[in-house]
Order: sequence, then structure tokens, then C-alpha cells
Amino acid sequence: MININISFGLYRYFSEPYVTLFSSNNVHFELVDHQDELSVVINHQKLTKTKEIINSINKNFDTLFINKVNIINQKPDISEYIITAYDHILDGQIDEDSIQQINSYLSGQFLKSSSFLTVYDFLLYELAQTLSHLNRPLYEKFKNIIEFISKFETTESIQKWIFDQTLILKPFSKHVKNVYNEIEKIASKNLNTFADFANLENCSYHYKLQLKNGEEKVYTDHIPFSVSPILIQKKEFDEFYSKTQLWNELIDKMSKNFEWAKEIFKNMSDPFLQGFLKIAEKANKSEVTQKIQMGLIRNDVLHSAVKHKWLQVEYNTLSISFGYIAEQVQSLQRTIKNSYLKNFFEEYTGLQGSSIAVVVEGLKNAYDLYNKPNSQILVVVSDFEGNSYDQRYPEYSLARDHGIICKRRTFEQLIEQTEVKEDGTMLVEGDEIAVIYYRTGYSPDHFPNEEIWKIREKIELTKAIKCPSVNIILVGFKKLQKTLQEAGQMEQFLNKQQCEQIKENFATIYDFEDETKHQELLNLAKNDPQHYILKPQREGGDNNIYGKNIYPFLEKLTPSERKNYILMEKIIAKPSISFMIRDRKLEVAPSISELGIISYFISDNQKIIHNRAGGYLVRTKRYFDDEGGVNSGYSVIDGLMIKKQQD
Amino acid sequence: MININISFGLYRYFSEPYVTLFSSNNVHFELVDHQDELSVVINHQKLTKTKEIINSINKNFDTLFINKVNIINQKPDISEYIITAYDHILDGQIDEDSIQQINSYLSGQFLKSSSFLTVYDFLLYELAQTLSHLNRPLYEKFKNIIEFISKFETTESIQKWIFDQTLILKPFSKHVKNVYNEIEKIASKNLNTFADFANLENCSYHYKLQLKNGEEKVYTDHIPFSVSPILIQKKEFDEFYSKTQLWNELIDKMSKNFEWAKEIFKNMSDPFLQGFLKIAEKANKSEVTQKIQMGLIRNDVLHSAVKHKWLQVEYNTLSISFGYIAEQVQSLQRTIKNSYLKNFFEEYTGLQGSSIAVVVEGLKNAYDLYNKPNSQILVVVSDFEGNSYDQRYPEYSLARDHGIICKRRTFEQLIEQTEVKEDGTMLVEGDEIAVIYYRTGYSPDHFPNEEIWKIREKIELTKAIKCPSVNIILVGFKKLQKTLQEAGQMEQFLNKQQCEQIKENFATIYDFEDETKHQELLNLAKNDPQHYILKPQREGGDNNIYGKNIYPFLEKLTPSERKNYILMEKIIAKPSISFMIRDRKLEVAPSISELGIISYFISDNQKIIHNRAGGYLVRTKRYFDDEGGVNSGYSVIDGLMIKKQQD
Repeated sequence: MININISFGLYRYFSEPYVTLFSSNNVHFELVDHQDELSVVINHQKLTKTKEIINSINKNFDTLFINKVNIINQKPDISEYIITAYDHILDGQIDEDSIQQINSYLSGQFLKSSSFLTVYDFLLYELAQTLSHLNRPLYEKFKNIIEFISKFETTESIQKWIFDQTLILKPFSKHVKNVYNEIEKIASKNLNTFADFANLENCSYHYKLQLKNGEEKVYTDHIPFSVSPILIQKKEFDEFYSKTQLWNELIDKMSKNFEWAKEIFKNMSDPFLQGFLKIAEKANKSEVTQKIQMGLIRNDVLHSAVKHKWLQVEYNTLSISFGYIAEQVQSLQRTIKNSYLKNFFEEYTGLQGSSIAVVVEGLKNAYDLYNKPNSQILVVVSDFEGNSYDQRYPEYSLARDHGIICKRRTFEQLIEQTEVKEDGTMLVEGDEIAVIYYRTGYSPDHFPNEEIWKIREKIELTKAIKCPSVNIILVGFKKLQKTLQEAGQMEQFLNKQQCEQIKENFATIYDFEDETKHQELLNLAKNDPQHYILKPQREGGDNNIYGKNIYPFLEKLTPSERKNYILMEKIIAKPSISFMIRDRKLEVAPSISELGIISYFISDNQKIIHNRAGGYLVRTKRYFDDEGGVNSGYSVIDGLMIKKQQD
Repeated sequence: MININISFGLYRYFSEPYVTLFSSNNVHFELVDHQDELSVVINHQKLTKTKEIINSINKNFDTLFINKVNIINQKPDISEYIITAYDHILDGQIDEDSIQQINSYLSGQFLKSSSFLTVYDFLLYELAQTLSHLNRPLYEKFKNIIEFISKFETTESIQKWIFDQTLILKPFSKHVKNVYNEIEKIASKNLNTFADFANLENCSYHYKLQLKNGEEKVYTDHIPFSVSPILIQKKEFDEFYSKTQLWNELIDKMSKNFEWAKEIFKNMSDPFLQGFLKIAEKANKSEVTQKIQMGLIRNDVLHSAVKHKWLQVEYNTLSISFGYIAEQVQSLQRTIKNSYLKNFFEEYTGLQGSSIAVVVEGLKNAYDLYNKPNSQILVVVSDFEGNSYDQRYPEYSLARDHGIICKRRTFEQLIEQTEVKEDGTMLVEGDEIAVIYYRTGYSPDHFPNEEIWKIREKIELTKAIKCPSVNIILVGFKKLQKTLQEAGQMEQFLNKQQCEQIKENFATIYDFEDETKHQELLNLAKNDPQHYILKPQREGGDNNIYGKNIYPFLEKLTPSERKNYILMEKIIAKPSISFMIRDRKLEVAPSISELGIISYFISDNQKIIHNRAGGYLVRTKRYFDDEGGVNSGYSVIDGLMIKKQQD
């Protein structure tokens, strides 16, 4: 047996057929990673080389392979059409011309001979299947493609390939026995079981139901979740995870340079940002305001299928959610994987995080630093909270494991109940507050009037430790995230080598600071809309503008208003097939997954006292949905699995 | 310090004032346990003796004590009135004569001197408070009692007593700072927190909500639970718990003597019983029917305040519930106790059971004995199941910890999906069933037509291991429970010493076998209705007839119909104050608690293979409610706590 390393993270449409062919024959091989990635596939030399390996192992696939080499020589053009059509579909577009070319290819020699399968036929099969799942009417327009699929699927030598391929994006049709179809069957037969199991793991959410008579009823059921975890290489995960503490150092240092931040924000008129800047101004001058601060951070990345590495979507510093639910979905998936799906994933093990542990540990450590018996932790929340299981668990855990009591209050309630003594001691209903933990206040909606801003300021200027402090909140504004990319900025905080580590994961971000460059940015958005996202300064999701909507939106804004936004490169991620359960219904669809690393740090004005990376959150969304919020029904909570250690 | 043992389990209305007085002064003392329990309290000799002990320790209580001795000598009669009135109240009745006597006592010398407090004044205070909570209008009729309470509560020397008394039934008034008031305040301020915590611990239930427009909506929220556990002596708990395995042996042996059971049931016409007898008849003759059987048992007892020991309410052999939720409420209570209530219960620790562990272990062991890879466990359920968290958890646990898959089906579904091979192998939708676990089928309603009886019989006559087998179900019928009390019956199964152990916990049960004795039994029910309960043969609760309803009900039945019932002594239990949360509302009320020990056994036709006692369930209900079902809204799930080991 010949062992050559697989480069796993490569873009699926050339690595997958190889990986599948070879791995089902236990051959490890190497794909050379050129800049033009497809050059490898159509390079005759390399194919011949790998052909020799295959030849010595499996006759079925050998036949297949020889044919492929032939077809490439005979019809090099068709491969270009397939790749172009596929590329367009992944971008949500249809290239009718390429599809026509493929159609005529299919009606030609291919369908006359079942053994005449090439690596491009595998690709074509995927293309057709992806089409069939994404766009049923379109799919039905191309009769030849349907015929192709049925022919392909009933080809005996293909069956093993179709069934065994569990690891990567896999096409499927209801008529064929393959792993994805099996999982789909199991998931749809056990929908209520899995949903009930989700609730048992506290993967639950409160939903509002609008009744016919106009009444509104809140009910509780499972959170949208994915049945089976995403495969990842441990190495790939660790690559980004290992930078978490460095990121926290950077965020801490940025948060301690208020003058720097103020300078950067100086042209921004957004009243939400202004509100925090005003509070920070006072907090940083105040004598009594607590200098110890806690950051609870979620650093979100996507794996770029083009750049073959993690690219940062954003980091979140305020009211991060799903620390608890993420871990619970991981447990849930592990249970399902080890029982209902045990025949498919025996070689893989769930990657179990400890995201909730760091939330609780962080709050406990902050509480201990405050060091006052019988003081309490204040959790500031919204009036109605769908995600209450996720929010309540840290409270429960603090009570259960440490005897610490949390007080859960809205800003409205705090207006009445808060008393601040001259020395900054904060009391709520007479109980001293050691730590303030925000699970609201991240959106302008949360500040409907001046009274709310006043209480927000009042509690910031106390001796209680804030998670997060207003300074950390400012660091979360997109403008600062963008500024880090500018020459010389990050270098104020980290050394050169550290800066390089951080910058590795940067996607390109533009801001509108320089008004002379606005036209250039508008042109980008106009000419290449699919490759950009426009984001406002604040966190929280669901506020972004995508694709074709960006240009008209930007055009209407005044140059000064544009400064409240950043324009960001859209990260092209590797898709995979997901089994998503929402509201007790199953959807099987190509999807992409965003990874968030959850961590905390606590620092005083001298140094970082605690700094720990915890678990992770994966949110998976349909490939063509722009937004990805779980609350808003787009994403499902997901988990990761890795290959078991083989020693 | 003088240490004399406390006999803790004694009836509260003479032990409590002593225990409180003495234990708040760290004096241990002994109450001699006579048959007429109150003789101890009014025995001058003993009081004088303990007085000497007190004298040397605490002056405040000394004064109190001397006065008490005086009053006993001066007015021995009033003590009798108090005890009589109290007794009547505990029985749900009012003795107006005694109350009048007390009124004139109160308007006499007592109210003239604040120091003139006696041990009977403590009792009287309790009486008044119990009255005030149980029967507000009556309470307000007796102005002197109100005056007495207010005088009592504002007496400075009493305050310590009122606040410190955490252990036993404790009176309280909103105007006084005492432990019960503090707990009530904390519970009402944190209602939603505790309810959300309950849901986090999976102490959840599905409820049906009738909407105005006639629609029905199912929603999920916490199960009714008690905020703080009941104090018990470990010794007292163990006393009954230690007999669990012996009880299982007995049940197993009874289940294996079908001819004996048939003979006993021979005069009973109840079609529900007849249904099972018919199935058992066939099962016991069949060659293929599985001989290995599993019993999952809950043995329910109340602690008699009169007999100072556990008396058995019933044992349950079919579809016992709350194995999981019981344990979760215990965790919940421990969390609340160690955080929100930590100032009150530091000396006590929750008694943590492992009730769910035995359910899962039992099913796993049964599954292993069946010994067939990829076979499944069938869970037979009702169509709508409010208690689904409790039912689903064993399924989840089996999947998570053992990779075993459960199939959850109704009888209706099984009619279509079941196939039984000639050798008795049972298949549901093609999957082989190793174990059948019933969570339905315990009530005539579950068998609406002959088809259901047929499928019930069909699956009984298979090779699958049943939990429980029809033979074990028959043993659960009340008639057999009653028969065990008859001379010579239990002796067929156990040796003399074992029989004695079991009989210790028997409450008196009468059956209607001998028609010449019916009149005698009817007279009992007519003349002393408060002391009896009439129970039908089947398990499941909510079908009993109480007090004054018994006689007219029995009178209408034919002598032969009466044979489907047993008449049982009502167990007078020790009341305590409970903080019950139902539907996010708090009720504080005197209540009694029923203890159920959960266990399982597996046997073949030779011997018992597994026999293990697990955790416990406590259901607490208002003192004057007859029924105690959790599902039906009467009971709350509760837990126990014990004094921490002091070494």
C-alpha cells in the first residue's frame, strides 16, 4: 500500500472524486495545491501517475479511470463547461450556455456506454444533483441531466462509490442506496425522537405563536439543529483555535487604548456608537468605576474554499449566545451518531467543546475577584427572551456549583431598583452586585429612550465588574476590526510575529473613511455584487446587506452615512450536505458552516489575569441563504467530528 | 453538655416544642415513646427532670419552662382541649366545643401576661396557624386566636424559637421573620427562576391548553415541584428501603404461581382483570413465550404519625412513572438549597437517589440477556403523553450510553407494524424486538376495543422480554396485595422472619370476598368514613373513593361487584409545610409526602438474575386533598434531605 498525504481541505470539486476513489481503496494520495487549483485535475501527467497507483489496486476503478483519461484527451472542452456551470451554481446563478453544452455532451456518446465514466462524470453527477436539490424547476428543464443521473446511479461499478462516501459533500437521489439517503431515511423516521432528545439536552427555545384569534402564545420546543456533525481535521480546527488567547490579548489591549479608538471613530455619526462613546468617556475618567473587566468573546470564521484557510467573519464581544446550547447540541449529535447512525460514523468521534464551562468559569472568577460574600451577579436581559435555556444555564450552574445567586433584570427594572453608593458600590433591591453580565444591549432597539441610556451609563460607572466593559464593547464595532488591517495599527499592540499570525485569517475589509475612494467601492459592489457583504458597525447579525442590494443601498447614503458601514469580501466556503431539523421538520440541503470559538479573559489595568479558550459553536446554513441567524430561522446549531486516533 | 437521644420521628405535636426549645440550646433529650403518646408531655415528673437540665443552660427558656410547669398544674384541662381540637383539624374537622374552651382560656389570664407561655401555648400557636392556613373564614371567627397569635409572635423571647425552627412543621405568619416566611419570600421572588431551573433539569411536562377559539395547543413547562426537600432521618429511610429486594423476591415468586393467583381472582368480574387473566392463561401455556421477565417496581409508603412507621399504600408493577423526573427534582432542590436557601439548610444534605439509573440498567440488562445485535427495545406508549420527558429519558440514555435504539409505538401502530414469527421472534417494521417496555396499558381506557386487546395478547406471546410480563401485572392487582395479609398466604413464598419484615409495613386492608361480612364493612365506612379509602383493583391512581363517598358508593353495588374493590385503612401521616410551585405559582401549605422506592428485578423461570433497589420518588400533596396524582395536578414532586454526617 502506498501512502501519500491527502490535503483534505481543498475545494471539493476537484478533491472529492479523487479522495473518494482512492479512499474507498485505501490509497492515500496527494493533490498538489496550485494557485489555479483545477490545473491539477486536467494535467495529464499527474493523472497518469495516479493512474498507475490505481491500476495496481482495483480493476473496477481502473476501467473507470482509463476512460476518464481518454475523455480528457478527446473532449477537453466539456470539462471547462462543467466547471463553469458548477461555479455558477455555487454562486446561485445559472449559466445556460454551459448547461446546453453539457446537454449535448450527454446526448452524445456518454449515454451509449455505461462504462464510459470519467472524473468529470462524477463532477457532472454532483452538479446535476446539486441542481436537483436547489432548483427543482430548473432541474426538470434539463431532461438529459435526469437521464444521466439515472444512468449514473444504476451503474453497478458506481454503487460502492455512492454508498461508501460518507465524508465529504455527497450527491444523492431517493432511488439509490447511499449513506446520505440512509441518514435522511433515519432522520425522517425519527424526527420526533430526535426533537424530543434535543429538548432533553436542553437544546430548547421559546417561540411565539400567533393564534388565529390574535392571541400570542409562547411555546417551547427544540432549537433548529443538525442531525449529524460536520467532518473536520483536528489539525485544521486547532490551527485557528490555538490563536484564541492571542486574539484575547489583542482585544484587551485595544480596549485599553480609548484615545486610539476615539480617534478612529471620530467621523462616525451612528447614535448607537455615540451612546457607548459617551459612556466610555465618563467611565475612563471616573475614579470609582471598576478597572477589572471581563471579555466573553466569540471569534467567528468560515473556511475559505478558495484560500484553503479560516477567514474571520467577525469577533463578538457583547452578549454572545449559544455557549451552552452549542455544547448540548454536540452531546445530542454524539448520542445520535453512536446509536441511530452508528453504522456510518464508527471511525469518527464528536469534537466535544467546553464552551459553557468557560462562561461559568469566567463569571465565577470575576465574582471571586470582586470578593464580597453574599454579593450577586446581575444578568441584564431583554423582556422576552426566546433563547432563555442558553441564558439560564450559566445562572443555574453558578447556583449549583458555586452557590452564587444571579439576579436577572431588564434595563426597565433596573431604573427602579438600582442604587449606586458614593464609592461606586452597586445595589439592586438592596443586594450588592459583584458582576454585571449583559445578555442584551447589543442593538439600537434595546435603547428605546433616554432613560435606558441613563441607566446603562449609571451601572457602567459602578464598582461592579462588567462582562463586558464599555471599552470592550467599543472594540467589537466593525470599524475597529477593519482598522486592524491597516498598516501599522495592529503593530501598536502585538509584535511582528503575533501580527502575522492574526493577519493570516483576515478577509479583505474596506471602509468608507476616504471619500475619494467611495466611487471605487461602489463600482466593486455594482460589478461584482456576489462577492461582497455590507455590514453596519454593530454586532448581532441580521443587519447585513448582500449582493445586488448593496449598490443601490450605498448609492442612496450620503458619503458621511456610508462611514457607518464596512464592505467585506464574501468568503466562499466549502459546502457540505446537512440534515437540518427545524420545527420538527427535516431539510436536507447543501450548506456551509460557520465556526465560532468561545473564550474569556479577565484583566485589570495592569495585566490579563485569566485568559482561556473554551469550546466552539458551529452554525450551519443553507448554501444560498445570505443571513445566518439561528434566532431568525436561517441557521441550525451544528457540531464537528474528527477521525478517531489510529494508534 | 448533657446528651440524651432524640426520638425524632415522633408525632409532631408533642415532640416539636421540646425539640425546638432544647435543640436551639444544644440540649439533646429523650421523649419516652408510650402507646398513649401524649402521656409523656403531661407527665409532671419528666418535665421537672428536663427542667433541671434547661435551668442550667439558658435563662430565657428557663422562665418559659417554669411557667409551663405551672400552667399544667393549674389548668390540666386546657391541654386536652388543644389536643382534641388539633386532632380534629388534622382530620379535616372542627371541634367547636374545644375551640370555645380555648377561646375562653385565651381571654383569661394568658393575654394578661406576656411571660405566661407554656408548652401548650406553643401547641396552641401551631393550632391557630394551621387553622389560619387551612380555613381562613373559620380562623377569622376566632378573634381570640388571632390576638393570641399576634401576642405570641411579638413576644421577644419567642422570636429565636420562631426563626430557628427549620426542621419540622412550622407555623408562620406574614408579619414575623422566620425561616418559613423567608423561604416563602425567596420562592415568590424567584418563581420564574426556579421554574426555568426546573425546565433546565428536565423537570418538564407537556400540558394541553384550551384556547378561546376551541383550538387545543400543547405547551411545555415545569412539572409541579416542591422548592425545598423534606427532612427525614437516614435511619428512617433505610428502614423501608432495605426491604426492597425482599419485596422484589416476593413479587417475583407471586408472579410465578399463576394457579394460586387464578384461584384468588376467581370471583372477580372486572373485565380489565379478566383481559389480563386470559392473556396470562395463554402465555403460561405457550412454549415460545419468553420466560425471562423484568419487573420495574415502585413501592409506595406513607409514614404513619400514629404507628410511627412506614405503612404501605401500594406497590406498582406496571408503567411506573417519574423514575427520571424524581431524580431531576432532587438535583433541582439541591441546587436551590445550596444557593438561594443556603442560610437555612447548611446542616442538611439532599438525599440523592439513582432511580433513573435502575430503569436504564434494568432495560440494558434485559436487552443483553436477549442477546441479539441490532435488536431494539419497544416502548409502548399512549398517543398523547404529557410526561414525555420522563419517558424519553430512558430511551435517550440507552442510545447515548449503550447505542441501543428504542422504538416508541402505540398499540394502534403495533397492530399494523408487528410481525411474530413461528419461533416467537417479534419484529416491528422489520426490526427485531428484544424487550417490550410498557408505559401504557395500565387502565381500562387504554383498551378501547377488542383489536387493542388482541395486539396486547399477540405481543405478550412473543420471545421478547417484557417489562413487565403479564404475570407481574397480575401481582399488581390490589386483591393479591390484600391476600398477602391473610394468614398462611405470604408464608408460601417467604420464610417466617422474612414475612415478619414485610408485614411490619402493612396497613389494614379488607376485601369483600366473604359476603356475610359486607354489612360490617359498610358500617365501618358509614360510621368512621374519614379513616378509610376504597380502591379498585387496578393501579394508576385517581380512581379511589374517599371518606363520606364510600358508603353510598358501596351500597349501590351488588355484593359481587364489591369484590372488585378493597377497603383500606387511611394512613394518618405526619404533615409538614411545603412550598409547592405549580404553573409558575407558589402555594405554601401543610402537606403530606408519599415515598416510593424504585427498583427492578429480572428473573427466568429458575431464579432471580438481577435485583436492585434504585432511587426514590416523593410526591407531596396538600394535607386535605384526597387524591395525590401529579398528572392530575394534586401532587408535586419532592425530595428528601438528611442531616449531614457529623464527624
